[in-house]
Amino acid sequence: MSSAQTPQSHLYLEVAEKVLRLAVRSRLMPGDRIPSIREISAEMKVSVSTVVRAFAHLEQTGAIEARPQSGYYLKPAHQESQSQIRCTQPSPAPILLKPNASDAEVYASVVQAIGRPGFVPLGAAVLHQDYLPIKGLSRAVMKVIRQQHPKAMGYDSLPGYPALRTAIAARGGQLGTAIDPDGIVTTVGAMEAIHLALLVLTRPGDVVAIESPTYHGIVHLLRDLGLRAIELPTDPKTGADIGTLEGLMKKKRIACCILTPNFNNPMGSLMPDENKEKIAALAGRHEIPVIEDDIYGDLQHGIRRPTVLKSFDRKNWVLLCSSFSKAIAPGYRVGWMVPGPRFQSQVEQSKFTLSIATPTLPQMAIAEYLHSGAYDRWLRKVRVQLMSRVNWMAQAVRASFPADTRLSVPQGGFVLWIELPPKIRATELHRQALSNRISIVPGTLFSPSRRYAHFIRLSAALPHSHELERAIATLGRLAHELL
Amino acid sequence: MSSAQTPQSHLYLEVAEKVLRLAVRSRLMPGDRIPSIREISAEMKVSVSTVVRAFAHLEQTGAIEARPQSGYYLKPAHQESQSQIRCTQPSPAPILLKPNASDAEVYASVVQAIGRPGFVPLGAAVLHQDYLPIKGLSRAVMKVIRQQHPKAMGYDSLPGYPALRTAIAARGGQLGTAIDPDGIVTTVGAMEAIHLALLVLTRPGDVVAIESPTYHGIVHLLRDLGLRAIELPTDPKTGADIGTLEGLMKKKRIACCILTPNFNNPMGSLMPDENKEKIAALAGRHEIPVIEDDIYGDLQHGIRRPTVLKSFDRKNWVLLCSSFSKAIAPGYRVGWMVPGPRFQSQVEQSKFTLSIATPTLPQMAIAEYLHSGAYDRWLRKVRVQLMSRVNWMAQAVRASFPADTRLSVPQGGFVLWIELPPKIRATELHRQALSNRISIVPGTLFSPSRRYAHFIRLSAALPHSHELERAIATLGRLAHELL
Repeated sequence: MSSAQTPQSHLYLEVAEKVLRLAVRSRLMPGDRIPSIREISAEMKVSVSTVVRAFAHLEQTGAIEARPQSGYYLKPAHQESQSQIRCTQPSPAPILLKPNASDAEVYASVVQAIGRPGFVPLGAAVLHQDYLPIKGLSRAVMKVIRQQHPKAMGYDSLPGYPALRTAIAARGGQLGTAIDPDGIVTTVGAMEAIHLALLVLTRPGDVVAIESPTYHGIVHLLRDLGLRAIELPTDPKTGADIGTLEGLMKKKRIACCILTPNFNNPMGSLMPDENKEKIAALAGRHEIPVIEDDIYGDLQHGIRRPTVLKSFDRKNWVLLCSSFSKAIAPGYRVGWMVPGPRFQSQVEQSKFTLSIATPTLPQMAIAEYLHSGAYDRWLRKVRVQLMSRVNWMAQAVRASFPADTRLSVPQGGFVLWIELPPKIRATELHRQALSNRISIVPGTLFSPSRRYAHFIRLSAALPHSHELERAIATLGRLAHELL
Repeated sequence: MSSAQTPQSHLYLEVAEKVLRLAVRSRLMPGDRIPSIREISAEMKVSVSTVVRAFAHLEQTGAIEARPQSGYYLKPAHQESQSQIRCTQPSPAPILLKPNASDAEVYASVVQAIGRPGFVPLGAAVLHQDYLPIKGLSRAVMKVIRQQHPKAMGYDSLPGYPALRTAIAARGGQLGTAIDPDGIVTTVGAMEAIHLALLVLTRPGDVVAIESPTYHGIVHLLRDLGLRAIELPTDPKTGADIGTLEGLMKKKRIACCILTPNFNNPMGSLMPDENKEKIAALAGRHEIPVIEDDIYGDLQHGIRRPTVLKSFDRKNWVLLCSSFSKAIAPGYRVGWMVPGPRFQSQVEQSKFTLSIATPTLPQMAIAEYLHSGAYDRWLRKVRVQLMSRVNWMAQAVRASFPADTRLSVPQGGFVLWIELPPKIRATELHRQALSNRISIVPGTLFSPSRRYAHFIRLSAALPHSHELERAIATLGRLAHELL
């Protein structure tokens, strides 16, 4: 996909993007036929040759496919179901997370490679700047500074900047739940929100249930807090296994759990609403809190923004955590949570201890951006771009990697979870990738029991380039060599 | 003291401020004679009547005093040594910090009162906006946005924004230590820096030595991390007791210690250089790390910026933590640390886990502000203002509070630590103050063993106003009523 700021000379890229947006608005699903070249040319008032070029680009980047004598179709993410990742089967025993020198070394090298100049950053789950609304957010900052700069320098006060909380609450409808602005606590990204929830809900030594695999930052955080983890079997399509979770809750074996029902990182799973409802009911019945991480929730590949687990939470045992880092402004470090009345006062106290307040100016700028209505317009655009990039990357991986490689089929977000042939050690692939100036994340980091030793996670949120094509080809070659 | 942005009509306020700055530049000490009204009038080229008004203002706000037949003198902070706070004598036993409902309630009410509209915020250790360089920082933000906005939206990468690290390193000379820009990790305020240090240096159950009293956020943080604390006897003038610390280090009874050698919050103590040198040597000999909190270091009341303990650290056992929150930009949440080569990699990993990165735009704005040279100019101005406000408040407290009230004599920063007659419960005074729309912090929060039940901390960083005068008088009246 092209840059979000397309120069005039690249009209075909604009057309390609519009075609995808049209498809999403028309509620087309993968496998559905899209309008013909002639129809698009007439509707968008551009030449047939430009549309041909746009379609060629969409085909090349994996968004559509031509079927002879029939036309162009939205491409299903993967056709071959046997090459998809299977449901995980982690051990049911709780694991005390201990510092481990080899993990620490791998984690350090992953962290240090992020943002290193000259590297192809497949290891960072962050949007490339081409996919960030830079002009819109810059305008928002300028407006804030011009209008009310004294406030922007001082500490914000708890529970967070009022206009931002109002703007977040206004999005409750899309999330399927009514949100009271005064029930929102703003945070330094979603990680602080999850951290605060853990500080309030656990003491060192407690057991926390997590998805397996789960975001490596959460694994590291549990370790830093001296907690134990139980890994839940997790389906790459439907998320955490409810039966296992119910057993743990019934026997009171866990202090709380952390779930990402919408587009788990790294698998991109999407939990069906009936599962969300059951989990919320279980949490209420057994009085065991659920920390819901919804940072990828706004980045669905399908038509409908998924509801949050919180929307089924009748008894206030779900702590909803999210942020603006994944969709618009990673560097602003603005997240938020709805801890619910049961936990809000304790969350606010720990928030004050951890960081005093959330940075004021970034909160004001995002509030301004949201109130202008630009956020939803931006999301509509960036979602189709990301879906297309994920599809392209899946196709490129399939073309270069060993034959029995399996892939996730993310239903939102922008990362791919890749199972290599078992013989390949992902930490070794990571090491060799680094010396080829490519960053990836090896799978061991996504599990406290060091599962997933032959898995890697790649971020697809990068614009199309020859450098990127070469990087995927290089990874494929390295993987073949490690067989 | 007046607003930092003095309108032309308030020339006498400008003159008053210049007189104080002149006194500081001329290295006058409290008790020294300042130039006469006539001399000032000639030197500053303003009318005698304006200088008379300026001197009256300085007298009223507690900065100078007239001595009959002799002239005007810089006012010593307190003349009566018997009314000063004494060295503390906490218990030598380690305390496991446990959640406590009554503490939590007090802490919640303190946190919630911060920034509440209509309250006199004596409880918040933060500069009033009149003392923040709002125009300068706003210009810096605008410049950053205009010049390089794409970077400002993305994640910053570890160890932090390069131009900011360069600017911080350039201040090493003033701190008495050479700082390598690559040895700096930027953080979300100094609290994140201290938090990171604790995550790297301790495991739950470990014992940490702290000053007594110590900043309530640190007490709360130790509790959140499941740590135990040992309180060090702390002198209001010279800081933590070295003998006690040496005993603990020798016997390996502590995992690390947290010290604020320069202007401990709440007492404003300043540790002599020879003590700093001894502590650094002890840390090296016993291989026990020292977390140095230097957030108030730039706000000395005297001539010289004090050196940091880190400057005596030959063996890299001191982790220096600081921020820009106390002197220029609380709401930017930009802090920094120099963890030293021994701990830097682990600190960076935990930093990535806690908050991914420090907010980019605020870092860029502060870097721009520092590189322009405006920071040191601003400090020269704000230091004399704060010293004058602290002196005024000490005087006002002395005038209104019960006779046997004792006060700290801070040598930097802007908070006052006040010992009330033992009969007065500070939590009750706090409760009654809140219903009079005044926030204060009761002393119990500054100790894990709930010492200091008859102490309170007040922030003096507020411009002079009748409302403020009334608030101090009200506190005094409430204290009398509780006797």
